[in-house]
Order: sequence, then structure tokens, then C-alpha cells
Amino acid sequence: MSKPAPGHKDAVYHTECTGQALDTVRAHSTPSELTLFGACFCPFVHRVWIALEYLGAPYQYREVDPYKKPADLLELNPKGLVPALKLSNGKGLAESTVILEYVDEKYGGGKGGKTLLPPLSDAYERAVYRLAVDKANRNLIPSFYRYLQAQEVEKQLEGAKEFTSHLTDFVKSMSPPNPEGFWDGKSLSVVDCTVAPWLFRATNVLRHFRGFEPEKLLEGDVLERWNKWTGAVFGLDAFKATTSTDDLYLDSYVRYAQNRPMTSQVADAINKGRGLP
Amino acid sequence: MSKPAPGHKDAVYHTECTGQALDTVRAHSTPSELTLFGACFCPFVHRVWIALEYLGAPYQYREVDPYKKPADLLELNPKGLVPALKLSNGKGLAESTVILEYVDEKYGGGKGGKTLLPPLSDAYERAVYRLAVDKANRNLIPSFYRYLQAQEVEKQLEGAKEFTSHLTDFVKSMSPPNPEGFWDGKSLSVVDCTVAPWLFRATNVLRHFRGFEPEKLLEGDVLERWNKWTGAVFGLDAFKATTSTDDLYLDSYVRYAQNRPMTSQVADAINKGRGLP
Repeated sequence: MSKPAPGHKDAVYHTECTGQALDTVRAHSTPSELTLFGACFCPFVHRVWIALEYLGAPYQYREVDPYKKPADLLELNPKGLVPALKLSNGKGLAESTVILEYVDEKYGGGKGGKTLLPPLSDAYERAVYRLAVDKANRNLIPSFYRYLQAQEVEKQLEGAKEFTSHLTDFVKSMSPPNPEGFWDGKSLSVVDCTVAPWLFRATNVLRHFRGFEPEKLLEGDVLERWNKWTGAVFGLDAFKATTSTDDLYLDSYVRYAQNRPMTSQVADAINKGRGLP
Repeated sequence: MSKPAPGHKDAVYHTECTGQALDTVRAHSTPSELTLFGACFCPFVHRVWIALEYLGAPYQYREVDPYKKPADLLELNPKGLVPALKLSNGKGLAESTVILEYVDEKYGGGKGGKTLLPPLSDAYERAVYRLAVDKANRNLIPSFYRYLQAQEVEKQLEGAKEFTSHLTDFVKSMSPPNPEGFWDGKSLSVVDCTVAPWLFRATNVLRHFRGFEPEKLLEGDVLERWNKWTGAVFGLDAFKATTSTDDLYLDSYVRYAQNRPMTSQVADAINKGRGLP
């Protein structure tokens, strides 16, 4: 289902997931221990959703129309931001990075012993994962938006260069390639969850609007590791189950690609040169 | 010990702590399990240092001259940023927020059962503390720099208003006052460690350069809770042991107060309207 975006006469916005993500929404439509308030196109929500599916946490998915926020979300969080996670104690949590750690602490180690961080006994390794998350939040992800929102050709070239450089750094921070291909060479972690939504949108949104072609921009070894990583992460059930069809993302990012005013708080922050809000 | 700051003809910078912090440096001058690379005026280092002292972690303090970084720091971290924590495995950690969690995971629960976060069994409470840290990093702390770096009177008034508003929000997020006065009403936590270095510098640096007077700017109940909090945190042994005399901070922030170019990466980021680097 898509609607015209208020104030954006030729842009639409989706108010329902598509493809496999829609099947997952339907399978998670009844009240549960957790309620995930999400928006189908939102990469910050996508982070949390991948983690919930991967860890087998009990949740209901509640789609939020960003222009018409439901009262129970506003009760939890007066700004109505997504992702918001409502817990069984009636309280709410916000901020995808904080929610990822919560979900791992609460539901990690259950179903098949899956976790998103190394065990507490290895505090150093946990810190290394958190540093990778922090770095992606500061560099890689803002550079995605600067690239996509750049209008002049020169700025777009700069954007391509900056994004490719941060992506290269990120790929080089991965473990050596192995049959699994995840960031740590073992299994899905908070690091993969943190970046996957944007790196996936790089493969459709940035490719479509900015001609981003990793196969031309990444160097030999880096490209090979990138391909292993995308194979592992984008091929994972928890990722596929929370991902809509390409057209939903392309529709949703027209406004960013044209850098229209009032697109989102993220777009505004990037235009002002600030970090993520 | 203070030296003229390169490129700043009437500013000095200190290369040694003063007061109680200097006594602590002397007591931690021999090789130990951890090495904290710090700079005497740096609030990000101060965060970590308070935590190490509070938890009784074994560490050597190594003062870094920011204009002459030692080779073993550059080996750990090519940018030579402080705080950097060198571990017994020879590896290094950066980013004060990540280091705080590391120190808690590694050394929390030891000496007297002290910890900086609630126990793992209370994942929700842990998330609430992390949300408070995240909010301070996004709002309260950048507003400290915007206020201090503002040059025109009008911008300074705006800065005072913005900082006071974030400070009021922070104080309102505290537990009801109690004899302890800490953020959570119980004991020192990551939240107190995160904000204490700047809120202390508000009481001397902002007061001196910008006439910041919490007793006039904060409203009744908020002022009362603020006084309880400052009494508890600034009166704590671990805080006093890591804090220099006021003159060191006043000297160190002249360059910020005059908003001189090349003062620091933090100052540059604030001038560009970005978040903390």
C-alpha cells in the first residue's frame, strides 16, 4: 500500500511492507511479549527487526504511518520515533543501537545459542564489536546519506568517493573471508545488524539513483570480501524475512535523492552537516 | 607544568595534572595491567579515569602531550587520540563510551561489588542507563561546547538557554533526590561518569568565561536535585582523585572560549555544526 507523501507531489510513501517482509508482518500480527513499532522503509527499524528474527524473540510488528502516528506509540515516546520497542512491563525503548544490546541481553543465548556479541567473559572482544558499531554510526552511515542527497555532479562524485572509502575501511575491518562471510567470520553480530540495512540499500537505492557499482569501485581483495559478506548477510533467513522488494526502497528514497525539504530528521541533520540525530 | 600552545601566542596548555589528580598520577606511575593514555584537561579521559578509580582497576596513568604524541600511543591508535586504554594483551581500545562498558564488564563487581550498570539480569534497566548516556552525548555535551565557543553576545545567550534546557532535562531524568544524590539515586554509574567531566567544567569554565550560574538559571526543584547530584558526584573520592585544580581547566579552555582555529577536533566539529567526532 502506498500513499502520496504530504508536501511531495510526485513522491509516494509505503505504509506496508512488501515481499517476504509482508509475510513476516502477517506472521507477527498478534499481541506478544514485545511490540516493535516500525516503518517499512526505515533502516534503523530494519536493524532491530533482523535481530529479533535472528534470535527468535517473541514480538508483534506494528507498522507506523510516519505522518499519522498511533496514540500508543506517542504514549511510549512523545516524538513518535521508530524503532520503538514496547516491553511486557509497558515501558518503551528507543534508539536502535541501545535496542540491539537489549535484545541480545534478553534473548541471546536462547534458540540455538545465538548471540549478537561475544560472551561477557571476553570483555575485550565485546569492546571491539562496539567500536565497529560506533565507527559505522559516525562514518559509514552518514556518508550514505551525504552521497544520496548530493545534487551537483561534483558533490555526487565526492559522495561516491567518501562512501567508497568508508565502505572499504569497513570491509577491511572484517575477519578474513570464510565460508560464512559475516563480519566476524563466524555468525551474525551487532556489527552486521548495524550496517546491513544501509549496505543493502547501497545495492539498490544508491545503484539506481547514483550509479553506485561496488564491482567497479572496490579493489580486488576488498570486492571479494564484500561479495562474501553480502552473500552471507543478505542470504540469511532473518535478513530475507525482514526485507521488502526493491521497488519499496526505490520509491521511499526518491525524496532523499532529490534532497527535498522536510524529508526526515536524518536528511535535515545531514544537510546541516550534523551527525545522525 | 604548562607550555605555550603552538599557534596560540597567549594561551598555555598543561602537560601535567595538578592538585589531587597529580597525587593520583604519582601513585599510578608504574607499569600495570592497564595503561590509560590521557591528557590532564581532557573530559573524555576524565570519564574513564573516574571509572578506573571507582572500580579499583589496576592501571598506570600516562600523560600525553597532545602536540608530541608518544610512539607507543601512535602504535595503538595511529590518530593518537585519548583516552586510549592499552590492555595486557597489548591491544588498545578507544572511545570513552566503549571503554566505560569494557571497564565495567572487566572490573565491575570486584572491590566492594561496585558496578557502573545494573546486572545483566535486568536488561531493561541497563538499556535505560544506555539511553541516558546516548542522550547526553547527542545533546547536553555538544551544547556545552556551543555555549563556550559562542562569540557574539546573542549567540552566548542562545548557548546559555540551550545548555540550561538540556541540563534541566538531564536533572529531571534523575531519580528522586536521596541521601546519595547520584543519577540513579543509588551509586555512581556510567551515566554519572559520562556527564560529570562537563558538568564540573560548567561550574568553573562556563562560570568563568560565560557567567554560567546554575543557582540563577535552574528552577527550584531542579536546582535542588542538581545540588544533591553535584554534592554526591563531585564529593566522591574517585572524582576528587582524578580532578585537577580549577586553574588548570580555566587555562585549558581559553582557546575554546575565544573559539580559536585549530583548538581541537571537538571544537572544529562544533563550529561546523557537526556532532562530537
